[in-house]
Amino acid sequence: MSKLVITAAITGGVHVPSLSPYFPHTPDMVVEQAVGAAAAGAAVVHIHARDPKDSRPSSDVNVFEDIVSAIDQQCDAAICITTGGGLGMTSEERLKPVNILKPELASLNAGSMNFAIHPLADKVKQPKFDWEIPYLKSTEDLVFPNTFKSLKVFSAGMQAVGTKPELEVYDVGMINNIKYLIDTGALKTPVYLQFVMGILGGMPATPANLLFLVDTAQKLIGAENFVWSCCAAGRTQMPLLTLAMTLGGNVRVGLEDNLYIGPGQLAKSSAEQVEKIIRIAKELNFEIASPAEARQILGLKGQAEVGWAARSNAGRKVAGGKGGQL
Amino acid sequence: MSKLVITAAITGGVHVPSLSPYFPHTPDMVVEQAVGAAAAGAAVVHIHARDPKDSRPSSDVNVFEDIVSAIDQQCDAAICITTGGGLGMTSEERLKPVNILKPELASLNAGSMNFAIHPLADKVKQPKFDWEIPYLKSTEDLVFPNTFKSLKVFSAGMQAVGTKPELEVYDVGMINNIKYLIDTGALKTPVYLQFVMGILGGMPATPANLLFLVDTAQKLIGAENFVWSCCAAGRTQMPLLTLAMTLGGNVRVGLEDNLYIGPGQLAKSSAEQVEKIIRIAKELNFEIASPAEARQILGLKGQAEVGWAARSNAGRKVAGGKGGQL
Amino acid sequence: MSKLVITAAITGGVHVPSLSPYFPHTPDMVVEQAVGAAAAGAAVVHIHARDPKDSRPSSDVNVFEDIVSAIDQQCDAAICITTGGGLGMTSEERLKPVNILKPELASLNAGSMNFAIHPLADKVKQPKFDWEIPYLKSTEDLVFPNTFKSLKVFSAGMQAVGTKPELEVYDVGMINNIKYLIDTGALKTPVYLQFVMGILGGMPATPANLLFLVDTAQKLIGAENFVWSCCAAGRTQMPLLTLAMTLGGNVRVGLEDNLYIGPGQLAKSSAEQVEKIIRIAKELNFEIASPAEARQILGLKGQAEVGWAARSNAGRKVAGGKGGQL
Amino acid sequence: MSKLVITAAITGGVHVPSLSPYFPHTPDMVVEQAVGAAAAGAAVVHIHARDPKDSRPSSDVNVFEDIVSAIDQQCDAAICITTGGGLGMTSEERLKPVNILKPELASLNAGSMNFAIHPLADKVKQPKFDWEIPYLKSTEDLVFPNTFKSLKVFSAGMQAVGTKPELEVYDVGMINNIKYLIDTGALKTPVYLQFVMGILGGMPATPANLLFLVDTAQKLIGAENFVWSCCAAGRTQMPLLTLAMTLGGNVRVGLEDNLYIGPGQLAKSSAEQVEKIIRIAKELNFEIASPAEARQILGLKGQAEVGWAARSNAGRKVAGGKGGQL
Repeated sequence: MSKLVITAAITGGVHVPSLSPYFPHTPDMVVEQAVGAAAAGAAVVHIHARDPKDSRPSSDVNVFEDIVSAIDQQCDAAICITTGGGLGMTSEERLKPVNILKPELASLNAGSMNFAIHPLADKVKQPKFDWEIPYLKSTEDLVFPNTFKSLKVFSAGMQAVGTKPELEVYDVGMINNIKYLIDTGALKTPVYLQFVMGILGGMPATPANLLFLVDTAQKLIGAENFVWSCCAAGRTQMPLLTLAMTLGGNVRVGLEDNLYIGPGQLAKSSAEQVEKIIRIAKELNFEIASPAEARQILGLKGQAEVGWAARSNAGRKVAGGKGGQL
Repeated sequence: MSKLVITAAITGGVHVPSLSPYFPHTPDMVVEQAVGAAAAGAAVVHIHARDPKDSRPSSDVNVFEDIVSAIDQQCDAAICITTGGGLGMTSEERLKPVNILKPELASLNAGSMNFAIHPLADKVKQPKFDWEIPYLKSTEDLVFPNTFKSLKVFSAGMQAVGTKPELEVYDVGMINNIKYLIDTGALKTPVYLQFVMGILGGMPATPANLLFLVDTAQKLIGAENFVWSCCAAGRTQMPLLTLAMTLGGNVRVGLEDNLYIGPGQLAKSSAEQVEKIIRIAKELNFEIASPAEARQILGLKGQAEVGWAARSNAGRKVAGGKGGQL
Repeated sequence: MSKLVITAAITGGVHVPSLSPYFPHTPDMVVEQAVGAAAAGAAVVHIHARDPKDSRPSSDVNVFEDIVSAIDQQCDAAICITTGGGLGMTSEERLKPVNILKPELASLNAGSMNFAIHPLADKVKQPKFDWEIPYLKSTEDLVFPNTFKSLKVFSAGMQAVGTKPELEVYDVGMINNIKYLIDTGALKTPVYLQFVMGILGGMPATPANLLFLVDTAQKLIGAENFVWSCCAAGRTQMPLLTLAMTLGGNVRVGLEDNLYIGPGQLAKSSAEQVEKIIRIAKELNFEIASPAEARQILGLKGQAEVGWAARSNAGRKVAGGKGGQL
Repeated sequence: MSKLVITAAITGGVHVPSLSPYFPHTPDMVVEQAVGAAAAGAAVVHIHARDPKDSRPSSDVNVFEDIVSAIDQQCDAAICITTGGGLGMTSEERLKPVNILKPELASLNAGSMNFAIHPLADKVKQPKFDWEIPYLKSTEDLVFPNTFKSLKVFSAGMQAVGTKPELEVYDVGMINNIKYLIDTGALKTPVYLQFVMGILGGMPATPANLLFLVDTAQKLIGAENFVWSCCAAGRTQMPLLTLAMTLGGNVRVGLEDNLYIGPGQLAKSSAEQVEKIIRIAKELNFEIASPAEARQILGLKGQAEVGWAARSNAGRKVAGGKGGQL
């Protein structure tokens, strides 16, 4: 049985600062919570950028670089950069941080869908920032566009810089999209799938749905041709991830997916969720992959090959790797 | 056991004229094949318009009106108008034919997705029209946009004119979209679902996928709150529809979905597919719904309430209704 | 796509003579209907014996020999002999007809279960024979015993005479039983599975159940290690078999499984059901396997190797093989 | 969300003393570990008897009475008595402990099957008792007989003394057996199902199988007509039970099902497994049912109504009920 790769998704583009005082909405907070998650046992950190001024989701390459190089100096975790982008951005603009920063991993969303988080607007009582409610509400009219042509652009762009695509799968048809991309040569196997469950517009987060996704991937892509992970929005997070382990998958936790650690109880950090899933994993006799082991399981190129400023190994405080000791 | 409602989808927006000499690509051909399908036993005809000049898919209300009123004069079948629209059209533009023509049924696509038919371009050896290959190829970069906001616009628009939405479901998440629309009051139950399987970008057409869609709808919407039908692209059409019957669903055939009647054998009309599915249905002891019975099963307002020019009952040749005699 | 092997189960041990005037309950009737089924396109006939005196299910080797040699003289169909046996018989007694007659195929029931047909007793209004109602009612207290030890005895006995086991699977656990027998060397792959659905005590005959059986077999045994067929009791027969074809399986029809050809309409023979399933199969573009093709698909030793009196090829009227022409 | 009912199955009839030094194989050990399991949080203890002389599985009513009255004096847990019986026993003999002791709960095995534990014989290196290896090996030729007639006898017998049947379900068909018993009036709803997974002869313990069992029960019996629990043999125990919770089920742990607490690590008692499953349940935000809450959830008659010697409340040390505090 393979060791369990834990990814922590630190901030994402779904939640807004006023939903939780613990939500990391500045670059510094993102760095701090990413490093904390790695110290707690996450082998991968999944990074979105936030604007230093007003905490909006940002696609600015410089902000990304500041964040990932700061994380990288403080821990060994592999870094995954989102390519979800922002409203109205072209594929090329969404790819730009990958082109320049050449991370080990980047998200590649495997199809188009409604990505609707407007119901969250009702939960914002006192917005910290003016943009929060309009931002959430705008998603009622949002398509998250990932056409086949853009999938090819993303895939080729990542291949060119040695970045492994993390294929975000929100529904069954997207697995067939991936099969099509494999069959037509745009993607190389083994692929790495992230089943993202519970987003309004995609598949709800239920055990039956997760089993069906895994089964579909095995039938369409072949069990030997993919490695997978799962994340689930909101209160279904922990039970779904526990099932994912049992089914042979890896898991993603983090405040991007769920602001809570228990009913009515806000999580103080992604690390807190990492710790919880590790406690469950240990009860079920899973071993946790260290960053080095995760790199092998996922087929990553290694930290030395990333595109941001060269790291001084001397100066690095290695916080990650705890996972490997479990 | 309810009688079987057969829908014939006459021309659609997927196929191009050069793929089959039998493909109805002019308004007159659409009318003729729709009437023929009704005569063969289809209780509903699903209508897209084609430009009289160059046979392109068209959203012109006048063309729609010419087609549906001509069909209506010659048969009793209920008429369903597409709201799929064309590239770059707003929801309001896509709704216009429904607003004006007030049909008994109209399609309402239950979410956004890639709707990719570019692989068909390779099958066009000698295009009849210049637009065919570029049209097909353009879908590699196409999102079929149906945001939650537009779903509400469509739903309200249809409700305003008494048109029953036929909710086109291409993937599992779209059933959850429908549940959301029901829960928030935008859709009224019972709803009518059309599982559209086998479009690249959506769910492949397999028995396991069809069972999962039906199961999911029963769990999310409740078995008593929906009636459903199924259509499947290409060679899986007949076996999937046969399974759909067995599962308690209705069926849609027609050249929109499949140009063939057997391996390597082009269908001469949608009527030919109607006849085939009726032969299978009779072997399996299903009774075929007449147009009147279909109206009751689907909850349609009746022919008298449509918005096109009043029909002269005297002048109508009633070809439909054969189904009821089976 | 492999050709479709049609098996006809002529008389079985479930139905009693008074349930249908067309039910073949004497050796002569069994022979006649088996030959008729083969002429209609069945490549395999599944044979139980009936007592010539009172039409009770019989395990008498001589009766079996009379039946199979008479069938064999009149058609090319492969012959499968049941080893279901009767109440209180040992495995050795149940195997005796196989030991002596060395047929190409024999049933091997893959586990123990309640095999309950007592509800049929209520449908017998005027029993032709005194034994009918007590026989049916006795099954309320019947276990159909097929322990692991007896499974090994059956398997070894069949191997010794070159008879291919047709593994009768009535529930999910029995597939795991087969896996165990393969893993421990008692059975050799590829195995031949018959999913027998709809017996009270086993799995009900539903599409979801059939898909689950096929999926389970693929996971536990491996798709490349088995060939399968399906039969279903009562009114679900034809829709389930139609689904079975679509899923890549073969089909078994016959009056053993279903006395009817339509709602309230008794079948006049197994041949009538063979004809119906062939009509459906042809609508769905399946080709029907001839006896020779079926022998290849199922891995049978051939007619020449059976144990009953040598056949005079000169005197044989070859009625089978029609299937191959379809 | 209902609170979680934890059952501890203390000794069962599957394991033999030499497989673990911690295995409770005398009446005193059974009592001690049952009381310990209740103290740890189990609301129900599932009891088999063992012969005081040689630790063989026993069906002796006196031994049963000694065990259950001793447990009852020391804790509040509801007591479930097995009716699995021994080789060659009639239904009436298997029912006798229920008739006389009138427990709150008793097992009612919902169909016949091979119940094969002979592979365990290979794990016995130094048998403590002469009977161990022959006992295990004998199950290779064992049918666990539970005919429809005996199911009616068991059900009527339990109804007569107010004992709630815990319907042990080992495979899909058994759910249909239960439906038949409900439809024919032999069982009253709501019923209580225990899915027993991973016994050779029944369904393997996999997530897909558990989901299918739950789905099947919902379809055949109706979600409102049953409460369920799950137990799983061997190493799949904890992950399957964790999934069961997530699906809305209750859980059974205990050395009857699994001798281990981790890979290669023997459990020192059923209590240790109770503690583990409670830790997992708490991580997933489940609340644990106290014995009183469990009685309400399962519909039990209460401790006062059992048939063994009247209890002196004064003398009882109440160890159970800890669950309710969690």
